[in-house]
Amino acid sequence: MSDIAKKPIGIIGASGYGGVQLVRLLFEHPGVEIVYLGGDSSAGKKYGSIYPHLAHCINLSVETIDLDEVANRCEAVFLGLPNGLACDIAPVLIAKGCKVLDLSADYRFSNLDTYTDWYKKERTDNEIAAQAVYGLPELNRKQIKEAQLIGCPGCYPTASLLALAPLLKQGLIDPSTAIIDAKSGTSGGGRQGKINMLLAEADNSLGAYGVASHRHTPEIEQICSDLARQEVTVQFTPHLIPMARGILSTVYATLRDPGLVREDLITIYNAFYRSSPFVTVLPNGVYPQTKWACGTNLAYIGIQVDPRTGRVIVLSAIDNLIKGQAGQAVQCLNLMMGWDEDMGLPKLAFYP
Amino acid sequence: MSDIAKKPIGIIGASGYGGVQLVRLLFEHPGVEIVYLGGDSSAGKKYGSIYPHLAHCINLSVETIDLDEVANRCEAVFLGLPNGLACDIAPVLIAKGCKVLDLSADYRFSNLDTYTDWYKKERTDNEIAAQAVYGLPELNRKQIKEAQLIGCPGCYPTASLLALAPLLKQGLIDPSTAIIDAKSGTSGGGRQGKINMLLAEADNSLGAYGVASHRHTPEIEQICSDLARQEVTVQFTPHLIPMARGILSTVYATLRDPGLVREDLITIYNAFYRSSPFVTVLPNGVYPQTKWACGTNLAYIGIQVDPRTGRVIVLSAIDNLIKGQAGQAVQCLNLMMGWDEDMGLPKLAFYP
Amino acid sequence: MSDIAKKPIGIIGASGYGGVQLVRLLFEHPGVEIVYLGGDSSAGKKYGSIYPHLAHCINLSVETIDLDEVANRCEAVFLGLPNGLACDIAPVLIAKGCKVLDLSADYRFSNLDTYTDWYKKERTDNEIAAQAVYGLPELNRKQIKEAQLIGCPGCYPTASLLALAPLLKQGLIDPSTAIIDAKSGTSGGGRQGKINMLLAEADNSLGAYGVASHRHTPEIEQICSDLARQEVTVQFTPHLIPMARGILSTVYATLRDPGLVREDLITIYNAFYRSSPFVTVLPNGVYPQTKWACGTNLAYIGIQVDPRTGRVIVLSAIDNLIKGQAGQAVQCLNLMMGWDEDMGLPKLAFYP
Amino acid sequence: MSDIAKKPIGIIGASGYGGVQLVRLLFEHPGVEIVYLGGDSSAGKKYGSIYPHLAHCINLSVETIDLDEVANRCEAVFLGLPNGLACDIAPVLIAKGCKVLDLSADYRFSNLDTYTDWYKKERTDNEIAAQAVYGLPELNRKQIKEAQLIGCPGCYPTASLLALAPLLKQGLIDPSTAIIDAKSGTSGGGRQGKINMLLAEADNSLGAYGVASHRHTPEIEQICSDLARQEVTVQFTPHLIPMARGILSTVYATLRDPGLVREDLITIYNAFYRSSPFVTVLPNGVYPQTKWACGTNLAYIGIQVDPRTGRVIVLSAIDNLIKGQAGQAVQCLNLMMGWDEDMGLPKLAFYP
Repeated sequence: MSDIAKKPIGIIGASGYGGVQLVRLLFEHPGVEIVYLGGDSSAGKKYGSIYPHLAHCINLSVETIDLDEVANRCEAVFLGLPNGLACDIAPVLIAKGCKVLDLSADYRFSNLDTYTDWYKKERTDNEIAAQAVYGLPELNRKQIKEAQLIGCPGCYPTASLLALAPLLKQGLIDPSTAIIDAKSGTSGGGRQGKINMLLAEADNSLGAYGVASHRHTPEIEQICSDLARQEVTVQFTPHLIPMARGILSTVYATLRDPGLVREDLITIYNAFYRSSPFVTVLPNGVYPQTKWACGTNLAYIGIQVDPRTGRVIVLSAIDNLIKGQAGQAVQCLNLMMGWDEDMGLPKLAFYP
Repeated sequence: MSDIAKKPIGIIGASGYGGVQLVRLLFEHPGVEIVYLGGDSSAGKKYGSIYPHLAHCINLSVETIDLDEVANRCEAVFLGLPNGLACDIAPVLIAKGCKVLDLSADYRFSNLDTYTDWYKKERTDNEIAAQAVYGLPELNRKQIKEAQLIGCPGCYPTASLLALAPLLKQGLIDPSTAIIDAKSGTSGGGRQGKINMLLAEADNSLGAYGVASHRHTPEIEQICSDLARQEVTVQFTPHLIPMARGILSTVYATLRDPGLVREDLITIYNAFYRSSPFVTVLPNGVYPQTKWACGTNLAYIGIQVDPRTGRVIVLSAIDNLIKGQAGQAVQCLNLMMGWDEDMGLPKLAFYP
Repeated sequence: MSDIAKKPIGIIGASGYGGVQLVRLLFEHPGVEIVYLGGDSSAGKKYGSIYPHLAHCINLSVETIDLDEVANRCEAVFLGLPNGLACDIAPVLIAKGCKVLDLSADYRFSNLDTYTDWYKKERTDNEIAAQAVYGLPELNRKQIKEAQLIGCPGCYPTASLLALAPLLKQGLIDPSTAIIDAKSGTSGGGRQGKINMLLAEADNSLGAYGVASHRHTPEIEQICSDLARQEVTVQFTPHLIPMARGILSTVYATLRDPGLVREDLITIYNAFYRSSPFVTVLPNGVYPQTKWACGTNLAYIGIQVDPRTGRVIVLSAIDNLIKGQAGQAVQCLNLMMGWDEDMGLPKLAFYP
Repeated sequence: MSDIAKKPIGIIGASGYGGVQLVRLLFEHPGVEIVYLGGDSSAGKKYGSIYPHLAHCINLSVETIDLDEVANRCEAVFLGLPNGLACDIAPVLIAKGCKVLDLSADYRFSNLDTYTDWYKKERTDNEIAAQAVYGLPELNRKQIKEAQLIGCPGCYPTASLLALAPLLKQGLIDPSTAIIDAKSGTSGGGRQGKINMLLAEADNSLGAYGVASHRHTPEIEQICSDLARQEVTVQFTPHLIPMARGILSTVYATLRDPGLVREDLITIYNAFYRSSPFVTVLPNGVYPQTKWACGTNLAYIGIQVDPRTGRVIVLSAIDNLIKGQAGQAVQCLNLMMGWDEDMGLPKLAFYP
């Protein structure tokens, strides 16, 4: 890339955990240069005062959000804002010719009524929303390449859909039996001072939340329905785990053909993800640890079949902030720019 | 209890995590006095050299295992040994008139063939085994009171069965749909120097193990089958969580009557556990944190119904080493001795 | 205690971590009954809605702070408020005849100018403050028994002073060489939603704060000066450790007599703390783990002498919320009431 | 580097934590290719069976240690063996023309008697040892460039010496007052199944060890003495912290000139480390968190002066396995090969 001009990019909402991953990844990305960091409450601050460990190398300040200025300076813009704000910003940037990658829920839904039901915000940007592509490259690689607007998937949906996609796409399971028991590190809750996210409360403890009511449910169901070519309802239960990063989705479903064995499924998964550089299907009897994926854009998938119950159990591990958020957005950017899909994205964890 | 002579008790296998909980609980128990600690590799050592934090108050040494001597001195004996040893020891102690509470798997199975299948040890003590009572007081209170030999439940089965029992007993679910996604702190792996249990490996990570093959499966199925009065096969998946203590079982099952709502089930659970001092059924919308139970003999149970899928989801949290092991054994002892069921057992966690 | 009427006590500021320890300890304390919980922002709430794990046994609500009512109902009152509030409340309660135990910094200083310098609040309650006793029973047992008002020590001062007291009292060290490198779990920061206390930020990390400027410095120096009968300046550096509970103070000082060996000092410490039921001086070569003290009112002290440097190194471990806060306050109450010093206070940790 | 042939390198002792960092770093290093992994107990195993998260990209097996073969294949060899083995291996490899970077203590000492005193192994390789350079590039950059044998520093010495070097080199402190209170994550204990390193024991706890007797003491003293041009004795106390990675050294020393202020020292440190790409001196009032350095080769240094006591307090944070071990070895390799000092070394952490 050394003789190609680096593309100027911006990040609106740079002070949260998604934002700081983007800054970290894009700072070392050979194809881009960060030329703009925007924020609201953090406007005017040196970025290094928000994240002191970066002060020696990131010499940018957070600017107020002026969309004309952003569009002037940036070829592509990442939006790392709370739900319900991107849908006001993206249409403006799109109109000015920017590529937009939204990390919130605003552009994940093909049916905006579903969005409004779960996120309680009316939407008027139907036309723009209709152009948005769901940014899961393993499923939508071709459409992402052509897109100007990406609705980047949630962290839980990423882990869960990578586990379910081959099964649903190939009709191997009864979709109504799908249960997703998901476990996440606390960074998924964002950089906000919530009592239940304090180390004193969350460490050495474990609990479920949003049981039968978490907002990632309709997002998972939409993509599952597309894959299965039928309406799919899933059971999704998130849990908070005493660790900073990582998601494990444990997925259960009843096989349509009880004769399928683990080896068959490993073969099917390997074929399904053959051209996906970030998905690693594990061999027989190996189940992923979330730490293996930490600090990388990888998804590790382990598969087991229980002949006693006729179920398949799939374990899927990602870093919730990389493959589950910022890394996946960069993966989408790579595709949109026509670059190698894995450019600038870490593929090896530090362990332990 | 001050004017009643304290009952002399012994612990064989006192150096592990189960053993040190027993020592801790029984040292402050008003009804007993620890008069014997036995072990193999630790024989001859001062107990305070194994657990230095106890040296100032526990002035006992670990003795070699001489069953005549044990039976002479002790009215009741706890066995905290690896699987496959208690079945050689218990018959001798029983014959000499001791009450025996075994913390291993040896006396948990009514069908010894099942034991041999899963634990790979032939058994010749059928007669003794037939007298053993499964030591889950919430289900077997009456039999425990009469028993001389208790097979104390495993940690995962305790959490899981407390969640499932009301549903199965009252026929509220289709048993074949039961899925138990269980999560445990690493102390469940015992005080052995295993690489995967090192803080460096296990902290900040999360993974499943023993998928479709964990030894607690047949134990859970046996009791579930008793409750349901039919052969029950369950899906059981344990996970290792980066924390020292605690188990959460997330249980899924399809309701037979889709009209049942959460409030109904809370009522049913409250009735089922009315006389169980250690089970706390949580109100609407509250789900347990494992930390709430830490250092106590409590089980916290949270219940949700998902009308979209027709499933009930039950969350059950215990301290794996107390209610899941040593505390439950003491609870059984209390019943066997005719004492208050909760005597000497902690009922309030320190939080956070 | 069964035939003695339980003393009615109240807690103002019951919703923080100090408050919930008090509730936990006093609920099981044989000599008292909690008859009042007071708070400001939490007024009107059921206590069990603030701490759901207690809902099944604590059936009290937080009331607004009405000092007449408090004094009417309570014989003794614990104040668990932010610094600067107790000094407005305590004089009123004292005047009405209550015993008052203040957990804040307000009554820890014999010189109120020092307080005002460090805590930025002018004081007008000099007369009341002059009656206050510094609530470290190991040093002030006799005065506490006679006191009506206790200024309970800070968590760092408790750990540090227990390590330093024998050395200073007996003139064994050059006070100007005293360095306290202290390490605390994050619960010391209280139940507030601070970003740096989030598990995502604080876990798997470690750092110093308040270097050469922490408010516990003058408190430590005041007591050290009393002990040494000369003005003492200490170096005190607190660190935040990725764990919920526990403090370790590592104390360095140069011995006046280079001929003293470790065994001498262990003898001296054992003598100094002979009648202190909560201080455990460890034998040769054993250094405390904070976990040994967790959930107890114990302080474990380990001692080493380095003949190469002429220094003594003392390690002191406590539970910051029990011996470092609420447990010590209860210990003071026991003394004030004429009860056994250790009544109702836990003396054995659950380990691991 | 794309048109330069990659240098073939080998790692003997690849299965430990140091080894897996080297594999991770060198796999992505543009100047080298890993052509040999050697081990003893792990010989014959696929590397991916030891570290399953690497199986999809590292297709090497661990080979038995045949030094002729190693020297044939490799231009440079890293030794990641327990103390006392490298001194038998390095001389052979040196004689065959390999560059050798030893991660053990064997080549850290200019005086082999000191080594033998502390490590209890007689040495006969004086001539080779005399050629070894202590691999701390910030102090010995020039000698490392010319060296064929590097004794890579210990993790604690790296953190501590980076904090102390400017003070000693410039005579700013009284060396006899130097106290190093060091805190390390548990990965420093290596990949061995030690009971005290289990998550169940080490998590949520904190303690000192090796007080006044840790083997890193003479290593630190040797370099301090070189810097101060006088015999220096330091007080060094290591602590085990409940986290996997990271070291913080808190260094205390009395300033010779009490008029020096913090700003002066920050200026001096910045000048001292001006050409050291991996040392970041923090601005006024900022103290490092170990997490900032995790997964990088950085050292963050924070400085405070306490005018009340006349002491300087320096905080130094590194990743014990990268800058404290494998990363620093790669940094040395870069210098030995004439490459950019920072080639292939990570400079930005993922946070949080």
